[in-house]
Amino acid sequence: MSAASPPSLVVIDAVLEGKPVGLRCEGGVIVELGPEVTAAAGEATIDAGGGILVPPLVNGHTHAAMTLFRGFGGDLPLMRWLREKIWPIEARLEPEDVYWGTRLACVEMIRTGTSRFWDMYWHPAATARAVEDAGLRATIGGPLFDLDGARAETQTRALGELDELEGFGTTIASALAPHSIYAAGTELLSWTAEVASERGLPVHIHLSETEHEVTECIERHGVRPAQYLDRLGLLGEQTVLAHGVWLDDSELELIAERGSTLVAAPVANMKLAVGGVFPYPAARRAGAAIGLGTDGAGSNDSLDLLADLKVFALAQRHRNGDATVLPADEAWGIATGCRAPLFAGDGEPLAIGAAADFLLLRRDAYELSLGDLHSNLVYAASGSVVDTTVIGGRVLMRSGEVEGVAEIVARAAERARGLRIG
Amino acid sequence: MSAASPPSLVVIDAVLEGKPVGLRCEGGVIVELGPEVTAAAGEATIDAGGGILVPPLVNGHTHAAMTLFRGFGGDLPLMRWLREKIWPIEARLEPEDVYWGTRLACVEMIRTGTSRFWDMYWHPAATARAVEDAGLRATIGGPLFDLDGARAETQTRALGELDELEGFGTTIASALAPHSIYAAGTELLSWTAEVASERGLPVHIHLSETEHEVTECIERHGVRPAQYLDRLGLLGEQTVLAHGVWLDDSELELIAERGSTLVAAPVANMKLAVGGVFPYPAARRAGAAIGLGTDGAGSNDSLDLLADLKVFALAQRHRNGDATVLPADEAWGIATGCRAPLFAGDGEPLAIGAAADFLLLRRDAYELSLGDLHSNLVYAASGSVVDTTVIGGRVLMRSGEVEGVAEIVARAAERARGLRIG
Repeated sequence: MSAASPPSLVVIDAVLEGKPVGLRCEGGVIVELGPEVTAAAGEATIDAGGGILVPPLVNGHTHAAMTLFRGFGGDLPLMRWLREKIWPIEARLEPEDVYWGTRLACVEMIRTGTSRFWDMYWHPAATARAVEDAGLRATIGGPLFDLDGARAETQTRALGELDELEGFGTTIASALAPHSIYAAGTELLSWTAEVASERGLPVHIHLSETEHEVTECIERHGVRPAQYLDRLGLLGEQTVLAHGVWLDDSELELIAERGSTLVAAPVANMKLAVGGVFPYPAARRAGAAIGLGTDGAGSNDSLDLLADLKVFALAQRHRNGDATVLPADEAWGIATGCRAPLFAGDGEPLAIGAAADFLLLRRDAYELSLGDLHSNLVYAASGSVVDTTVIGGRVLMRSGEVEGVAEIVARAAERARGLRIG
Repeated sequence: MSAASPPSLVVIDAVLEGKPVGLRCEGGVIVELGPEVTAAAGEATIDAGGGILVPPLVNGHTHAAMTLFRGFGGDLPLMRWLREKIWPIEARLEPEDVYWGTRLACVEMIRTGTSRFWDMYWHPAATARAVEDAGLRATIGGPLFDLDGARAETQTRALGELDELEGFGTTIASALAPHSIYAAGTELLSWTAEVASERGLPVHIHLSETEHEVTECIERHGVRPAQYLDRLGLLGEQTVLAHGVWLDDSELELIAERGSTLVAAPVANMKLAVGGVFPYPAARRAGAAIGLGTDGAGSNDSLDLLADLKVFALAQRHRNGDATVLPADEAWGIATGCRAPLFAGDGEPLAIGAAADFLLLRRDAYELSLGDLHSNLVYAASGSVVDTTVIGGRVLMRSGEVEGVAEIVARAAERARGLRIG
């Protein structure tokens, strides 16, 4: 899919912020936008029929291929689930497993309006191939561990993976993805910071998901997790910190100062019962960049970011005892990547010159038929309100139908059976 | 819709608990169920094409017509939202408003697999008419208040409403619905208990939604809310208690002993930031009957009970710091009414002799393609996995399409505009 340049595409009779608009995409970019846009004879055209145009969502933290583990042993406590169910199978994963697990994840993300995601998983080149074939965008890194002392092998593997990821088109970016401060040692983390700096690559890491991680960090390193990362040179403008449940005010201020992006993953936090809630009011006060992530389907088990956006808003209201803590407009901005410069990229979405990434919502969506659009997107809708998904000017879904779903579902199921899951 | 007897209907090539089945409905009841069922020539037939057959969901607490208030002022604090937005408009509501708001709610419930709901709202006969026209089932009561001292008028209105509700078919049941112990005085509550007892009617009441309600009850009546209700004769096998967030162990034991049904409404509790979480482990230990409700769209803002089921399970895991607190099979049983005798009625659903109420799930649902079905229904699915909804042998939705949606959406929007909402 990466080879051919996307064809031109015209959308007519859409609604943007309450006003009728059309738009024209050429070379994957929006080149015209406004009420006057019309389609010429023979141009590929979507008649939106009055459907609402919105930017797509950014999933800031996931392990896409873990769709293979959906509905598998999820009622076990976390450590038993990992030790008995997940890790033994992950040790046997082949690139084809990751490819088909990721294709299944991409179906769900296209269906529910996500255009881009940040992924951390084994066999990252297989993930990249799946994302490219599906037509989505992703920033991908293989997880770096050296709990077993195998630092040299991890580093060699990481460099090899970065080389492999270089071979993909512009929709795929690579990242360094040290798993966490407890699974990657100080030397491995320092090496990661060096390579990231030399190559100008982003860093994607789990941070402060459990309280135990904080206690252990203070015991071992004398400082809290964000301060430890900063000491190692890992907090920069291209750093993505997933979870951040147990960060204190001083850490949030440091993260904001460094320009790193915090990604809340409320569903996974609640499902795994980590006990805390992402400190949104303090993170906002500190001025930190904030995104939203589903985490992997193994610990969620959905990749429908709109559903997670509701849980995020509900958890913030609940935790802070305040129904006004997260206005709907702000919540919608978080899910679309607009509250994190790293996710937003240059400039506004849905503007001339921006990537031709957009959604059209179902015209007959009863969830959106009355009241404020952003409030309804946060609280009333699930991803099923998305009718049409266009990424880089390519139509990946129309009328709620993603092409090839039956085959992808069947192939993923075949790989799961091969791994003896379920 | 109530007048004509439902036609016979045959379903072939469905899957129930992993096994291929067909079923035949006659007179609104399942009369055959098993692998051998085939359709005769000319019989109305659904070829499920391998789709999964499950019982529909029971929404134990809602105010259906509040779809009119969806997305309207929801970022305000609770009391300002009620005083400035909801109450002034509710004072102007006409039966046609309630009718079209409820029709809109019924579209959403049919779309997302709910067959029955417990409703408390103004103009209950208009609600009943909408439910009957939509083909759903409901137990309906107008809210009883006498904060303003208007007890006699409230009682007269209630008796009139009960008379009106008598005129409907068997899919409509009536209830007495005193709003709460703080909005209905002791005399009104005692009167409610008498009328309920004389007429054999259920009682539907909000209980222990906020901590303030508990404190005030102890101050005024010297006992906690459930004990106060019991003293007034309001805790019986036909009593539905919505919310129950602040009930203590002694109250849960009393409720279990009396056979009343607790309905958790986790999304509304979190959205309104009431501060607590329904005490599921203690309620389960006490042996109480438990159901699940969305509450009204004004404080949720969705009526997709599958989405709420996920929030319920997540909130329980989070609050109790235990990923094993609510196994998926148990959660599914709560949403389908199987953990509350009042909701389950006589016998199992999906059995010969049971009402012909069932769902077929989408054959290509990626959310259900791998792993345990109940786990996926709780954690991976939203209501959009429902392909077909059949209630009393009538097909209310096929292939995700509910008949007449566009008109219902338009008429509800017209009523909302008339009320100057939005």
